[in-house]
Amino acid sequence: MIEKLIAQIKEKQSPIVVGLDPNLKFVPEFIKQKAFAELGETLEGAALAFKEYNKGIIDAVADLVPAVKPQIAMYEQLGIPGLEVFKWTCDYAHEKGLVVIGDIKRGDIGSTSEMYAVGHIGKTVIGSNVVSAFDEDIVTVNPYLGSDGVLPFVKVCEEEKKGIFVLVKTSNPSSGEFQDREIDGRALYEHVAEKVVEWGSTTIDPETGYSEVGAVVGATYPEQGKILRKLMPKAYILVPGYGAQGGKGADLAYFFNDDGLGAIVNSSRGIIAAYKQEQYAHVGEEGYAEASRLAVLDMKEDLRQAIASR
Amino acid sequence: MIEKLIAQIKEKQSPIVVGLDPNLKFVPEFIKQKAFAELGETLEGAALAFKEYNKGIIDAVADLVPAVKPQIAMYEQLGIPGLEVFKWTCDYAHEKGLVVIGDIKRGDIGSTSEMYAVGHIGKTVIGSNVVSAFDEDIVTVNPYLGSDGVLPFVKVCEEEKKGIFVLVKTSNPSSGEFQDREIDGRALYEHVAEKVVEWGSTTIDPETGYSEVGAVVGATYPEQGKILRKLMPKAYILVPGYGAQGGKGADLAYFFNDDGLGAIVNSSRGIIAAYKQEQYAHVGEEGYAEASRLAVLDMKEDLRQAIASR
Repeated sequence: MIEKLIAQIKEKQSPIVVGLDPNLKFVPEFIKQKAFAELGETLEGAALAFKEYNKGIIDAVADLVPAVKPQIAMYEQLGIPGLEVFKWTCDYAHEKGLVVIGDIKRGDIGSTSEMYAVGHIGKTVIGSNVVSAFDEDIVTVNPYLGSDGVLPFVKVCEEEKKGIFVLVKTSNPSSGEFQDREIDGRALYEHVAEKVVEWGSTTIDPETGYSEVGAVVGATYPEQGKILRKLMPKAYILVPGYGAQGGKGADLAYFFNDDGLGAIVNSSRGIIAAYKQEQYAHVGEEGYAEASRLAVLDMKEDLRQAIASR
Repeated sequence: MIEKLIAQIKEKQSPIVVGLDPNLKFVPEFIKQKAFAELGETLEGAALAFKEYNKGIIDAVADLVPAVKPQIAMYEQLGIPGLEVFKWTCDYAHEKGLVVIGDIKRGDIGSTSEMYAVGHIGKTVIGSNVVSAFDEDIVTVNPYLGSDGVLPFVKVCEEEKKGIFVLVKTSNPSSGEFQDREIDGRALYEHVAEKVVEWGSTTIDPETGYSEVGAVVGATYPEQGKILRKLMPKAYILVPGYGAQGGKGADLAYFFNDDGLGAIVNSSRGIIAAYKQEQYAHVGEEGYAEASRLAVLDMKEDLRQAIASR
């Protein structure tokens, strides 16, 4: 999958992933009203609103970005109807040729991680049938349980040519509480990074030289990003925290390798709720999808400058 | 919720949680054949088999145990039909008066953890309606992201009188890879345990003295369990790893406090697939639910002896 992701990044000249993290606070009133009129102020109604909202954004940005990243928590808060829209969103993004990164941050003991891996990026065997449950291309994985919680995902990556991004240094304010603690003279996140290299060593794509096992490193921690970039030269880095969480393009230059590749930057609210920002407000609520397109174009230029500045 | 859990533990004299982790390998042939005949060898057919299987087990053990713990990964592998059965299982267990521990091991940045908390143990606000998406009583939470990834769950615990168990020292073989690493002279899991105490400090139930914020500590690590029991005197400990993973009752004496409370021990395969064990095989596949009841009774005696031996 890393080969496909990189091909799309090169083709679209855009190391950007759009975080499809819908929230009723962001969904324009006209979409909510229509959905609630049809299905009521219910889980089903809210899920329908998310679907319409996502469709508008995917249609508006599909030619500009290589990938989308639906955050499953936003859909889980709506229960079954929400998860149906999560699945629909993954499938619709695929129809539009996009790589789908499921931001699921799963991780458990071996036999349980295997079920998550099978359900999200692999195939479930039922009697003589083999079926896809969710069918994402790449998922995020939590490393707290160690190798036997991660390797079942790697196994599926090998078998199905899929990918994972392992949480290394997350973007949130308190990520340092455990991740920055020093162990034998190095931060925990560096130890995790070392494992990411090890876990990915069997999944290096011969074409691009990158591994199917990437890492999550927050845009909000540029110094750590620089260190981690060098520690994991063959790991793609998924960079959350750009925009609404405070990360700027200028901070991100050293998340990329010398080849201009190696990182893909996520923006969620900054793109999907762009119409609420002053600079895009002229499009109005009805133009929310157009605003998301404009925000992607601005982000693309911001990152181009960051990469060029290296 | 901790008050209700403890009341049930006392009433049933049974610190046992049954892990409802269905797997097509465990589901008796007669259940699979019936479900596949009705819905085919599909996600829907497998989900129906899980439902029938769970129903039999819940009916057989509801009067013996305080709680069940469905592992959501098993249901996610079956996509939407699987998650429908996850929800059905939670609801059916509630009907039978059981406490439902959703083994979801979620954890993310603050705003995202809030969505998980709302979706699983809280309420989702949709316009002027307030609805439950999944409605578990307690969920498991991954601490890798630090306080701001956990506190949104604690907030919902306070508001809704629900509970969480935070992963501290997991039961799997490689849990030590990161969790045992030494930071300032103490293992990472001890630092996480210290935070569990802090996170739970606002949720102490005046009646029982226990907190709504508990911890997961694997039965496979009795020495660490003894240390962690003392470090977190007011935290209930959810103990996975009994039975199939190798933990024995005799190892668990020191997971309990002097009051005989403070721990609840999970067994999944050891109970739900008991009919496959030699000692219960006489009931046959058709008697799988009866076998699970017998396995619970044996486990109850094993734990009684362990607690008495302290």
